[in-house]
Amino acid sequence: MLILGIDPGTLTMGYGLIEDQDEELRIVDCGILKASRHMPIAERLKKLYLGLMELFTRYQPEEVAIEEPFVAQNRRSALAIGRAQAIAILAAANNNVPAYTYAPTRVKQVVADYGNSSKEQVQRMVQIQLRMSQIPQPSDAADALALALCHLRERQLAKLISQGD
Amino acid sequence: MLILGIDPGTLTMGYGLIEDQDEELRIVDCGILKASRHMPIAERLKKLYLGLMELFTRYQPEEVAIEEPFVAQNRRSALAIGRAQAIAILAAANNNVPAYTYAPTRVKQVVADYGNSSKEQVQRMVQIQLRMSQIPQPSDAADALALALCHLRERQLAKLISQGD
Repeated sequence: MLILGIDPGTLTMGYGLIEDQDEELRIVDCGILKASRHMPIAERLKKLYLGLMELFTRYQPEEVAIEEPFVAQNRRSALAIGRAQAIAILAAANNNVPAYTYAPTRVKQVVADYGNSSKEQVQRMVQIQLRMSQIPQPSDAADALALALCHLRERQLAKLISQGD
Repeated sequence: MLILGIDPGTLTMGYGLIEDQDEELRIVDCGILKASRHMPIAERLKKLYLGLMELFTRYQPEEVAIEEPFVAQNRRSALAIGRAQAIAILAAANNNVPAYTYAPTRVKQVVADYGNSSKEQVQRMVQIQLRMSQIPQPSDAADALALALCHLRERQLAKLISQGD
């Protein structure tokens, strides 16, 4: 199972790919797609969309986990996050890949066992669980890996529960 | 000059096409793209995106006017409008068609000569200027025509000003 995590933003879109094969978990790739503040919004969205489409083509992820922005500080940032999230959801849908959204507190809970964990604690857990020599950089890439990891754990839990029936 | 106006929403996306040829203004088409409240958001966005892509293919508009949502009542609606707007902007960008955004007060000002006009006054002006027998229905289609009309007027004004230089 190859999972793509996406941390949506209209300037920086973090991505992280993890694979779970024969109970072995490994990182496949992580990084960021970048747009410039000086680009018109149409160019920015197109660049990020094409960047995501390229990731889908290259890695063929089977499922996608996207941050659900419950925590926008104001209407302006809600609008921007809505735009970025739509681009990510649409890229997944246009590749017929199911997309799941997770609130930040859920990611913290699942990956670091505590909904009020700091960003750094979550990133440290990502590093440990993926057996990386240091915290993945930049932080948007680490956040995307945390999303992918969160989705994988949720799947494993759902499987365990259904086996218990 | 064929202009496509888009009134973005994640349930109903209004569209309106007008053409300005030899100083003659005419309506080409208008209507709505609809998604269902029961669809997951990914399906909704995909359906609206594909619907817009079809309009671009069928009519080959030269420029697009999209409502700029300055007036979201809260963060939840800002998020939804951001999503819908991103889909519209991306459809235009992926067809290499320039997109322009207009705030609702600007549309009222340009189309009905008054920034505090009611929605009905603006729709009545759309009907008159496009010489239609009645106000276009549904209202999201009329709003999209108003956007297209606003963009056309702004273009004409800019042309007049540049000729005056």
